[in-house]
Amino acid sequence: MESVDFGYVTGMVATVAFAVTAVAAIKDRGVDLFGVVVLGVITAIGGGTIRDVILQVPVFWVKDLNFLWVALAASLVAFFGRSLVTEGQTYAIMLYLDAFGAAMFAVQGTNKAWRLDFGLPAGPVILGVITAIGGGLLRDVLAGRPTLLMSRELYAVPLLVACSLFAAVLAWWPEHRAAGAAVCVFVGFALRAAAIRWNLAMPRWLLSRAPK
Amino acid sequence: MESVDFGYVTGMVATVAFAVTAVAAIKDRGVDLFGVVVLGVITAIGGGTIRDVILQVPVFWVKDLNFLWVALAASLVAFFGRSLVTEGQTYAIMLYLDAFGAAMFAVQGTNKAWRLDFGLPAGPVILGVITAIGGGLLRDVLAGRPTLLMSRELYAVPLLVACSLFAAVLAWWPEHRAAGAAVCVFVGFALRAAAIRWNLAMPRWLLSRAPK
Amino acid sequence: MESVDFGYVTGMVATVAFAVTAVAAIKDRGVDLFGVVVLGVITAIGGGTIRDVILQVPVFWVKDLNFLWVALAASLVAFFGRSLVTEGQTYAIMLYLDAFGAAMFAVQGTNKAWRLDFGLPAGPVILGVITAIGGGLLRDVLAGRPTLLMSRELYAVPLLVACSLFAAVLAWWPEHRAAGAAVCVFVGFALRAAAIRWNLAMPRWLLSRAPK
Repeated sequence: MESVDFGYVTGMVATVAFAVTAVAAIKDRGVDLFGVVVLGVITAIGGGTIRDVILQVPVFWVKDLNFLWVALAASLVAFFGRSLVTEGQTYAIMLYLDAFGAAMFAVQGTNKAWRLDFGLPAGPVILGVITAIGGGLLRDVLAGRPTLLMSRELYAVPLLVACSLFAAVLAWWPEHRAAGAAVCVFVGFALRAAAIRWNLAMPRWLLSRAPK
Repeated sequence: MESVDFGYVTGMVATVAFAVTAVAAIKDRGVDLFGVVVLGVITAIGGGTIRDVILQVPVFWVKDLNFLWVALAASLVAFFGRSLVTEGQTYAIMLYLDAFGAAMFAVQGTNKAWRLDFGLPAGPVILGVITAIGGGLLRDVLAGRPTLLMSRELYAVPLLVACSLFAAVLAWWPEHRAAGAAVCVFVGFALRAAAIRWNLAMPRWLLSRAPK
Repeated sequence: MESVDFGYVTGMVATVAFAVTAVAAIKDRGVDLFGVVVLGVITAIGGGTIRDVILQVPVFWVKDLNFLWVALAASLVAFFGRSLVTEGQTYAIMLYLDAFGAAMFAVQGTNKAWRLDFGLPAGPVILGVITAIGGGLLRDVLAGRPTLLMSRELYAVPLLVACSLFAAVLAWWPEHRAAGAAVCVFVGFALRAAAIRWNLAMPRWLLSRAPK
């Protein structure tokens, strides 16, 4: 991060949203402050950490501890204010911020892997999705919750669409990288927001077994 | 992979078998297409990815995306044809292919770690076993299933025998690397095939508690 | 490790304690010898492995396989002697050795990350805690047990205190590194030992929900 730019500020907003939705996800499980903060931070920075370990580049939060501090502070605030931020209107806003943050992290992850020439064109798509959902997967595994892979919720598919579109932009119209990134983040966010708004889920014929 | 050789072709066959047995393992859980494909791909290439991250060399599928495409295609085919490939005769064949593939991945993993001089002689044995079972462990953790470590099934022990034998070959008869690899793959496969065929399990006195 | 020094010997003692407490943790689950040994070894060396993968330096046990052999031998002995070492007086001693080992691993992890200039000052604290608890988290996830993050037990908080104190020493009084390390290990151990002895847990107001 060279300067405080739009991507940086939105990355911080997304980090807050990830930490807050994490606290909401585990609040019914009797976890203590330590566990809540650890799981909040893991949710916020875990995906990017997995991405960087696979890319074998220094993990992103080491070069700029602000991501860590923001995730920590947001988790603490969310813990003590959990009756406020994990319910009602505020939580609904957080869900949409989480959707926006996930789309942005995904596209940024694809961008980073593409610049590093990591297994084009499929590698950047995979790492983009991992950037966005890896932290949540780690949280759910450590908290003993079913992961999003076991749910019909449309969470990862919008991200896969966004990353694939952005990989197409980078492959065929690299001169439109910036505009393409914005469009792809918007597409990923819009699909996810629609899924939240209208409670969309995978159609039954795309399930391995009819739900009970 | 320098050329399309025997090891390469069998690696692809093993990748298919891993993806198909993964789809079979999770088909009763109401997972959607996205989850099935992600878990199929993770099962097929996850073990080698963990190995390469620990070895700190570029992950193998980045240099040759065919492993990824084959795992992806096999997962898709297995999902849509799951009533065919995850039952009866076809599935029995897949189980034996999976056994063969696991033995081959294990010996290849030991070979790769040995060439990189990684903690001889124990390091390559451990990484060989991780190559073969790591993907399945990741799948089970993400799918909320008991891992093979919690089962009496003889899955990993044949692989441990094969990798240990191969480490002995590399230590004492390095001039017989190729023939030794073939023999060790065969030994690992034969032990596992016997376990499948005659339903062998760990004897009770090697359990931490008598089974219920 | 340049020579057989105090830290080395205590590291081995801690490795034994980690393996034995791991066998105790999973002994009621009907795991077989292979699973027990794998989980014992993972508990003992898993945390340092995660730390080194994130630091992107060669994993510590590759340079000195003794950690691996000791963990392996301790797991085997603990398995066959589990009625002796996982109950009563011996187990109580193991719990305190585990507490000591965790404090030592944590401070060593912080020290290693600090020397590598990894995201000062928060990075070394995080990696110190990961060094100490990462192996146990991996074990619990692979064994399908609730992780310590889901418990009110005071296990990780003493380690966080020890690592934070040691980071302060390294930041402000680097000339007292050795004495500071000893004091911080003692503080971490003493807090944990008090938690074991008097069954201390997180106060209720620091839980995300009142316990049932």
